[in-house]
Amino acid sequence: MPHPHDHDRVVLAHGGGGELMNQLIRDHLLTPLRNDALIQLGDGAVLPPSEGKLVFTTDSYVVTPLEFPGGDIGRLAIAGTVNDVTVMGAVPTAISLGLILEEGLPFEVLDRIVATIAKTAEEAGVPVVTGDTKVIERRIGRDGSPGDGLFINTAGVGTILPGCDWSIGRIEPGDVILVNGPIAEHGLAIMSVRNGIEFETSLRTDAAPLNHMLHTLFKSGADVKFVRDATRGGIAGVLSDIAETQSLGVEIDEQSVPLTPTARHAAEMLGLDPLSTANEGKVVCVVDEADVDKAISSLQSHQYGTKAAAIGRVVESDPPLVELITRAGGRRVVQRPYGEELPRIC
Amino acid sequence: MPHPHDHDRVVLAHGGGGELMNQLIRDHLLTPLRNDALIQLGDGAVLPPSEGKLVFTTDSYVVTPLEFPGGDIGRLAIAGTVNDVTVMGAVPTAISLGLILEEGLPFEVLDRIVATIAKTAEEAGVPVVTGDTKVIERRIGRDGSPGDGLFINTAGVGTILPGCDWSIGRIEPGDVILVNGPIAEHGLAIMSVRNGIEFETSLRTDAAPLNHMLHTLFKSGADVKFVRDATRGGIAGVLSDIAETQSLGVEIDEQSVPLTPTARHAAEMLGLDPLSTANEGKVVCVVDEADVDKAISSLQSHQYGTKAAAIGRVVESDPPLVELITRAGGRRVVQRPYGEELPRIC
Repeated sequence: MPHPHDHDRVVLAHGGGGELMNQLIRDHLLTPLRNDALIQLGDGAVLPPSEGKLVFTTDSYVVTPLEFPGGDIGRLAIAGTVNDVTVMGAVPTAISLGLILEEGLPFEVLDRIVATIAKTAEEAGVPVVTGDTKVIERRIGRDGSPGDGLFINTAGVGTILPGCDWSIGRIEPGDVILVNGPIAEHGLAIMSVRNGIEFETSLRTDAAPLNHMLHTLFKSGADVKFVRDATRGGIAGVLSDIAETQSLGVEIDEQSVPLTPTARHAAEMLGLDPLSTANEGKVVCVVDEADVDKAISSLQSHQYGTKAAAIGRVVESDPPLVELITRAGGRRVVQRPYGEELPRIC
Repeated sequence: MPHPHDHDRVVLAHGGGGELMNQLIRDHLLTPLRNDALIQLGDGAVLPPSEGKLVFTTDSYVVTPLEFPGGDIGRLAIAGTVNDVTVMGAVPTAISLGLILEEGLPFEVLDRIVATIAKTAEEAGVPVVTGDTKVIERRIGRDGSPGDGLFINTAGVGTILPGCDWSIGRIEPGDVILVNGPIAEHGLAIMSVRNGIEFETSLRTDAAPLNHMLHTLFKSGADVKFVRDATRGGIAGVLSDIAETQSLGVEIDEQSVPLTPTARHAAEMLGLDPLSTANEGKVVCVVDEADVDKAISSLQSHQYGTKAAAIGRVVESDPPLVELITRAGGRRVVQRPYGEELPRIC
């Protein structure tokens, strides 16, 4: 019988709980991700007690393709969970990594993605402390399209920053809406690759761990009411949540919304609204009107916030609506996307 | 355009981050799983500070079929993560739920599985506090076999029990090996269904949350050195880990290992070794020789431990081997399975 581990692809037997799975974990996961908690290889990790309230989040990643300009599914999986913990007002302290591998996945692809996971976790300063690996049979689409390769789930834990109260209920009329830079780049990068559309300046995902930037913002002393990462559903999704849950209106100035000319052009060609297109390194921050300058300076001091801008404000409104004030001075209602627009974007 | 939510199956648009996804989450997840942390619908859950060291684990579940005698993928996903946290010597306090749904999954199947998740979480007393849902395209196997329906990832957090030190390094020669009941039932139940083999008495998965049983064992005062759930790889996998990491031998008495006649018959027909067949409600406990009776009585006082038994002992051995003393008085070396035996068992 040939030894499956001589081959350069994942086989179903790598998920069986036997010696072959031990080899996969040791050679392709533990070495690149090495840290004290992970190498104990127990059923889980033991971490110090949390010093404040504990935050706990999870996200699965099914993006296709697995690798795209500026990043890959591994960068999304770490940045996404770091950001989810951070926008709760917490310091992320540990990440779990659940991999579902498809039979036939080349080890060279797995190794590149695990290297990105390690690099992004190091950038964020948040270790991957525990994990799990499963293997599923190779599958094809009805049109003969290839299988998915891998899915990732990450969960994250963190500790609430003492004195930090970023919660949607604190938002009031008069508060100002900020974003930390040009929007829609992740979704447009993915959709451009999928559609085989090339642009003069290539679009790259904005996927990035924002914990350091947001902790700097917290320490600036600006009165930040609420922070949310604008992933699936884009900034339109976050603003709709604010309007609906708080029964308030949101007015956005189109000309203030950071959007690169390349992204604008791509969105037009692809028929997408940048406001509802996914980001993976952008947050909507709602801040007290008096602290807008302080908050923007703080964001702009960080590499992921150099183009931060105020894009609108919270207003009284009945019914609660998100409205865009267009370049021409008109108004249009911004709606939460219904659902079809961007499958498998993260 | 027809409204996709009028249909009785999951469509790709349910994963798009829009209104349709909100409906899926509200109608099919939040209602059955309802609890205070989950309904806040933020990016994650906020939990009280951990009072001791924090335990953090994760597992993905890709079992096929999704439903089988005695349980389903939902019961595995909750019981498995509850057990992983518990065998670290901790009290599980919260679970995250990541769902990857395949386009075409009937809502009636999803609803049954989510109901099992809710019921198992309630039995364990551990709430699902945060979650995430993605949708992938329908895929088929090369042989035309249907798609997978859904994958689940759960992560768990918990707090180390004060005074509890279950760690593999505490194991010494003379310690006794216990299991809490008949082995191999989960793996055999799944393989019987897959192979269309029926037995006089149907085999059922043993999947169960063992936190209450193991906390009773801890409180019994018996000196428990180490506990590990014997999932993929079976009890042979756990015993191999003990031998390899501690450079000790393990001797198992075949006639002491709890195994039902039905399971023995099924294993023979399927050509499987019960020792390396997966369990989802069985743990290997290593206890000090002096406390064996106390530990067994404690386990037997709980519904999931009524058939608990001592099955062998830890010995000096060079090289470190796991050996089975057969009914006939012979010896055979028990090896960790290589990997092929039971794909997609959990």
